[in-house]
Order: sequence, then structure tokens, then C-alpha cells
Amino acid sequence: MMQIHNEDTIFAPATIPGTGAISIIRVSGPQALEFSDRLISCRKGSIAESKGYTLKFGTIEYDGSLLDEVIVSIFRAPHSYTGEDSVEISCHASSYIVSCIMELLHRLGARAAGPGEFTQRAFLNGKMDLAQAEAVADVISSQGKAAHNVAFKQMKGGFSAELRTMREELLEIVSLMELELDFSEEDVEFADRSRLDSLLQQITDHVSRLIDSFRLGNAIKNGVPVAIAGATNTGKSTLLNALLGEERAIVSDIHGTTRDTIEEVFNIDGILFRFIDTAGLRDTTEVVEKIGIERTFRKISEASIVLAMIDLTRDFETTSETVKEIVEKVDFSTQKLVILLNKTDICEVNKNVSTLNFIVSLLENKGISKESIAVIPISAKTGEGVNDLRKHLAETQTDLLGDNGTTLVTNQRHAQALTDARTSLLRVREGLALGLPTDLASQDIRETIYHIGSIVGEISTDEVLGNIFANFCIGK
Amino acid sequence: MMQIHNEDTIFAPATIPGTGAISIIRVSGPQALEFSDRLISCRKGSIAESKGYTLKFGTIEYDGSLLDEVIVSIFRAPHSYTGEDSVEISCHASSYIVSCIMELLHRLGARAAGPGEFTQRAFLNGKMDLAQAEAVADVISSQGKAAHNVAFKQMKGGFSAELRTMREELLEIVSLMELELDFSEEDVEFADRSRLDSLLQQITDHVSRLIDSFRLGNAIKNGVPVAIAGATNTGKSTLLNALLGEERAIVSDIHGTTRDTIEEVFNIDGILFRFIDTAGLRDTTEVVEKIGIERTFRKISEASIVLAMIDLTRDFETTSETVKEIVEKVDFSTQKLVILLNKTDICEVNKNVSTLNFIVSLLENKGISKESIAVIPISAKTGEGVNDLRKHLAETQTDLLGDNGTTLVTNQRHAQALTDARTSLLRVREGLALGLPTDLASQDIRETIYHIGSIVGEISTDEVLGNIFANFCIGK
Repeated sequence: MMQIHNEDTIFAPATIPGTGAISIIRVSGPQALEFSDRLISCRKGSIAESKGYTLKFGTIEYDGSLLDEVIVSIFRAPHSYTGEDSVEISCHASSYIVSCIMELLHRLGARAAGPGEFTQRAFLNGKMDLAQAEAVADVISSQGKAAHNVAFKQMKGGFSAELRTMREELLEIVSLMELELDFSEEDVEFADRSRLDSLLQQITDHVSRLIDSFRLGNAIKNGVPVAIAGATNTGKSTLLNALLGEERAIVSDIHGTTRDTIEEVFNIDGILFRFIDTAGLRDTTEVVEKIGIERTFRKISEASIVLAMIDLTRDFETTSETVKEIVEKVDFSTQKLVILLNKTDICEVNKNVSTLNFIVSLLENKGISKESIAVIPISAKTGEGVNDLRKHLAETQTDLLGDNGTTLVTNQRHAQALTDARTSLLRVREGLALGLPTDLASQDIRETIYHIGSIVGEISTDEVLGNIFANFCIGK
Repeated sequence: MMQIHNEDTIFAPATIPGTGAISIIRVSGPQALEFSDRLISCRKGSIAESKGYTLKFGTIEYDGSLLDEVIVSIFRAPHSYTGEDSVEISCHASSYIVSCIMELLHRLGARAAGPGEFTQRAFLNGKMDLAQAEAVADVISSQGKAAHNVAFKQMKGGFSAELRTMREELLEIVSLMELELDFSEEDVEFADRSRLDSLLQQITDHVSRLIDSFRLGNAIKNGVPVAIAGATNTGKSTLLNALLGEERAIVSDIHGTTRDTIEEVFNIDGILFRFIDTAGLRDTTEVVEKIGIERTFRKISEASIVLAMIDLTRDFETTSETVKEIVEKVDFSTQKLVILLNKTDICEVNKNVSTLNFIVSLLENKGISKESIAVIPISAKTGEGVNDLRKHLAETQTDLLGDNGTTLVTNQRHAQALTDARTSLLRVREGLALGLPTDLASQDIRETIYHIGSIVGEISTDEVLGNIFANFCIGK
């Protein structure tokens, strides 16, 4: 692990100034304690002379008058988040006070930190690897139990440990191969070829499993994609509001605060669902707009769950064609279909029995038993049945909540690196099977090791680091 | 000072969950340390056994899996904000983590704090008086140097000390008077009547000065009210945008964060200005809508500064009537008038010299010299001259920044209590002058003491406290 000594001392607010009761300003670097002493007057003893893991009370002056009373948390290298000497200044949550303190720190010679720079220093100082550092941002942004558990496990190094084992196995293989090359004139085989192939097979399977886990990992992190499909004016937006309405109420009960609303994402029993708007399916009596319909169907194909919305008040003729289009687009090997019979408040469920029978026959044609499809009567308007739908959605995804010990890849960069690693691995095995020279195979294994190492940051460029930490918030 | 022991332990987030890098959850009360130990596993030693002003690292489990790693700040009674045993739990700034920790605290038997409940406890435990407690909220919300300095001084007890002195003087007077009553049959005068009257005069003057300071104090806290008056389409909104635009740029440069925009308030050189929208003055060629015009003039009368906006491109006939109306509404004893000559980008300043001469004559009629009125040519569109206006606005209010040692009342409740105190005081002096019985005067002095005491909370009801702390944020 590389060890980079940062010469400068950085600062940033770790909370949003002007909100809440307390604001925190983080300072980290070789002069963090010295600058704090010059910034803050403490009644007895200096900050630089204080032990780590202690608090000090002090006052800050700004241009001759008292600015605030603060509490300073003192952390001494290497026992801090960044691994450097650090302090956290806790002041009143006024944006004026925070901006004055930052100005004073700047005058003393500290520098305003960029996004994620504290975590980047933690990485550069060997406090965590790159996959762990990336998980810090995921831990902060995760909105439900499932997403939190996956991110937290990654932050604690579970994923990294798996990759490390894989990497060590590959390093052993490649060193044996390269030993052969040194003795190439003697034509010895240090690495038993069939044992080698089975080991490579195991690693390839492992990598493939991790790549496959990205669909699930991504669903957990960014929400399970759900498409609500149906003809126009069947109540799709009303249903969304009903779903979001309850969610909003729950969120505000727990936190006692308002929060930024992401219209399309909602949390049911700890699982995040991402609503995909598919407005645009028109009744067949109207002119079909090719492009709009294609876009809608593409969105349906991205969903894990397709909710087919049927308006009970409409007759078979106006409903059947749209329903048929939806059902035919569902890929039952990867997607789940739910039939919603809407407007139970003004219409009997069995009124539209011919549409239901039609759906059953469509499913039979595709070899799908009607028992595997949920049919839920609802009234998006009154909310009747909406809880049944919520329960059903959560139940289809309970595997997302279970921690069965397997690692899930949640990061696009990691999935890409693993895909590249698998490509090299397959080339190794192909080459060995064809009896190609050992030096080519060893080169491909080195490439595999490179791709796997790039995930945890064994190998990283400034550009890669820049891209990763740019997505962090200031102060982290 | 009353001492109320709170039996329960309260908790609240002190930062807004889901924002920033760190979230803080405050816990305070007799079981704060015990609950923390049950919530958080520390590697060595318990929180309850730790010294005050130390930090501890630990982990929190939620329903069987690791939830987060946290840093706990430990404060032991009475050396804490509330005066009780307290901890501040610093966790990753995820709303999920914060809500889980709060749920766990609730399960342990702690209670979610109401708005301002930590500060209310600090007041009830004698850590600060009521005026100081109220200033805490002002310190947090103050947006500029002037507002911050006034609020901070009040929080540190400057205002309270002044009131305490006044209250002690009154108590001395009233006790002498009541002593006379005890010896009433002997007809003695312990309190020299003329000395008494001069003392009461001094106190009344002091109270009057404080009441008068509310206009300035309120301007500092809530912004100096500025009315931009003029005919429709003379560029009032464009000017406001030009003023706000620069301010916004400055704010975001300093903080590196976006903030909620309060459209009508802007900060110039540390002084808050509050823009009063006066849209509605129409050219005299149009029908005058009585009600709208009256509303505009009422708003003009609330302003400390009136900006009269003149469109240089319009001729004297269409301008003079509106200008006259504005100038006539200005109360030059309390308000400042600034003439803005707008659209310098497309029109010469001296083009409209007849309007200017007309204004000078209007001023002369009111006995105002033209030198006392600022005339600033601007282009709201290109921003030309806007900085001159900003400079001028700041200069008119520099007395707001100067800390000349006098106390400013910034709180409506305090101004009301002082007004009530003055009413009783005037009654005392009137009664003494008329030779009314001493017991009546002493009763009125007691009432004065009551009103003054109510500011610092010597006397307070649950209802009064409830109203005050309801305006605080959660976690403070």
C-alpha cells in the first residue's frame, strides 16, 4: 500500500451550514493541531499538547470580537479518519459562523478541501482501500436496510478480502509460470496444467458470479426498477402518488424533518423501488405513435417488475390490445408481472372477466402458469388494495434483504473491471488449451491481476482517483 | 434560579440527516450514559465510566447486523450544554443510520426531544437565562456580522446583566417603600422622594432607550427594510435580480454549497437588507386602483430606505406624478430617500433634467436640502452603478455594524415586556407626583419588576416557555 504524505492541511464543513443545531468543520493535516491552537483560545492547555480522543472547550475571535464558543474533538495520527492529525470543530449551526471560521483557517494557511478529499487521504494513507473508500459514499446515501447492509459490508472490507484472496491465487499461478519461463530450456512444468485449469475455472466462476450479482446489487443500491404500464388514464399517476404518499408520511414520522423528494424512488420495508414512468401507451382506437411506444417498451424491458394496469371500467375491446402488447414484451425468465385491476371503488372486479381470461390465455401461450402471476384489485384513488401491492412488491424482493453471505457488486466501475478480468481469464484458459506459449498466458494473468487490483486501488491513476472522489460530498 | 430535575432522557438529531458527511445525534438526561453503553459497543471501558470531555470509538448493531461505527463525545453533568449528563453520537450522515439509532434509543426508553428542548433544559437547569436561551436561536439563524454580533452578545448575557442591574435597583426601591408601609403609623420616609424620582427617571429613560433600540435591533436581525418604488416597468425587478445575483455569487463562493433562497433578503457588507416589493404604482395615464396604491404606500411607510426608481427614457409628463406621490409619502425624519436614475445603458443621465429639478423643488417644499438625498445613475440591466447603490446602502447603515457598547433589543417579546414595564413605571412616577399612597406605588414597581424579570425568565409560565421553544429547531 502506497504511503503519500500530504504536506498541506485541509478543512471543510462536514455538515451543511445553516441547518440543524450544530455545525462541524473538519481540519486534517500536519498543521491541524497548530492551526487550531491559533484559531481557538482554550482556558487551559493547548490543543497540540492534548491527548487524542479528547474534547476541548474554547472561543474563537473574528476581527476583534467574539465569534463563537466551540467544542474541539482532537484526533492524533494515525488514530483518525484520515490517518493524519485532525480536529473537528463543533460550533453553532450558523452559516455566518461557519464561513468566518473557514475564512480564519484559510488565513492561517489551511486549504479548502475538495469533494471526498478526507476519504481520499484515508485511502492514500492506507486507512482503507479504494473499494472501501467508494463504499463510504454509498453508506451515506443508502436509503434502506438492504442498500445500507451491502454498502456497510463493502466499507468494512468484505468485498476487498474476497478480491485479495483471488489476486493472491493468481499471483501464485503467475509466479510458477514465470519460474517455468526462467527454466524454459529445461522444459519443466512447475504448474500442473490440469490443476491450473481447474483453479482458473474456479476463479472465472467466482468472477462471473460477482459480475452477475451486479444486477441485484444495482437494484439494491439504486432501487428495484418497476414499470407501471397501461393505457393512458388508467390511473398510473394516481397509483404512484398513493405509493409515494404513504412512504412520505412514514419518512417524516421517523425523522421529524422534511427531505428532498426524489419523485420516482420509494422505500417499502427497507427495499428501494425505482418507478419507471411509461406514460405513452395509447388505446388502439387512437393513432399509434411508433417512437413513443418503442420508448415505453424499452423502459418496460429495463424493469425487474412490470405492473400492468387495467381500468376495470373499460370494456374488453379497448383493453385487450394494450394488455396483449405488455404481456408479450415481458421476459418471464428475468421479469415479474403483476396485473393491477384498478378502480375497484367504482367497478366490480369480476365485471371485466373476459380481459382476465384473455390474459390467462396469453400466458398459457408463453408457457406461464396463471398461478405464477399476481392479480391485485386496487383503487389508486381511495388507496384500497395499495397496501396489498406494497406487500407483494416487498415479498418478491425479500432475497434483497437476506444477508446470505455472498458479496454483491453495486458499483459500475467494479462490474466493468470484473468483466475485463473475466475476458483476460478466458483468454488464459483458451491459450493454455491450445498449448500457446506460457509467456502469453502469464501476460494475460498479469492483466487479470491488474483489473482485479484496480478495484481496491492497488493500481490507480490520479485520473481514476479524481473521478471517484469527485462524486463525494464536500467534507467527507 | 429555579432548578428542575428532568427525569427522562431525550434525544434528537443535531444535524439534518441525509446531508453532509457527518450526522450528530444528541442524547441528554440522567440515563444518557447508561443508554449509550447499551447502544454502543466500545473496545475498552464503558462510556458511563469515562471522564467528561473525552471521545470514545464504538460500533452499533441493529437487529443483529453491524449498523455503523461511531465516535461518542461524552459530557458529564454539570459540564454540558444542558447541564445534564449528555453524549453526542457522531455517525455517517445517512438518514437510514440516523433513523435506526433513534429507533434504538427509543427502544431503550429515551424520548424524542421536542423543538428547542435541549436549550429549554439548559435554561431550566440554570445554565442560561431565558433571554440568553432565545439568543441561541438568533445566533444560529443570523446571516451577517451585525445580526451575529447582537445575538452573540445577548447569548453571552450582556442584555441580561443590564436587566439584572435595573431589577436590583427597583427591588431596593420597593423594599424601602414597603419598609415605610410597615412603619406607616409612624409616618417615616425611608426613601427620599426626590432621589427616588430621579432614580425612577433614570430607569424609565433606560427602558425607553431599550424600547427605541428595537427598530434598529429588528432591522439588524430581520433586515433593514428597503422599498423600491416607481412606476411599472421602470426596472424594479431587474434591479432586485442584479442585487441578489451578486449576493448569491458571493454566498456560494464562500460556502461551496447551495442554500435555500430567500428572495427578498440580501446581505451587503455584513448588513442584512430586506426588500419590500412595491409593484403596483402605475403611470398616471392609467386608471389608479385605490386599494393597490394604498397597499404600496403602506409598504413604503414601513421602509427605512426608499429607493425611488426613475426610468430615464420616459418624459417628464409620464414621470412627475408618480415621483411626486413617492416623495410626499417619505417621512424624512425616520426614512432615507435615494433617487435611482435607471437605464443609463440606453439613455443619457441629463436627458431627464426636468424631472430632477422637479424633485429638488418637491424637497425644498418639505424643507429638505437636495444634498441630503443621494441620486445614483444605474443600469439595472447591465449592472452599471449597482455597486454604487450597494455601497451607498451599506454606508447609510454602518451604525448597525459599529459595536458602540449599547444594547439592542431584537426580540418582539422583549420589546413588549419593556413597553409594559415603562407603562407601570410611568404610573409609579405619576402616583408619587400626585402623592398617592405608597402601597399603590410599590404595587406598580412590583409589576415593573415582573415585566423586566419575564424577559430573563425569572418569572415564566409553561405556556410562555412553550411558545418560545416551539420556534427552535429540533436538536437545539
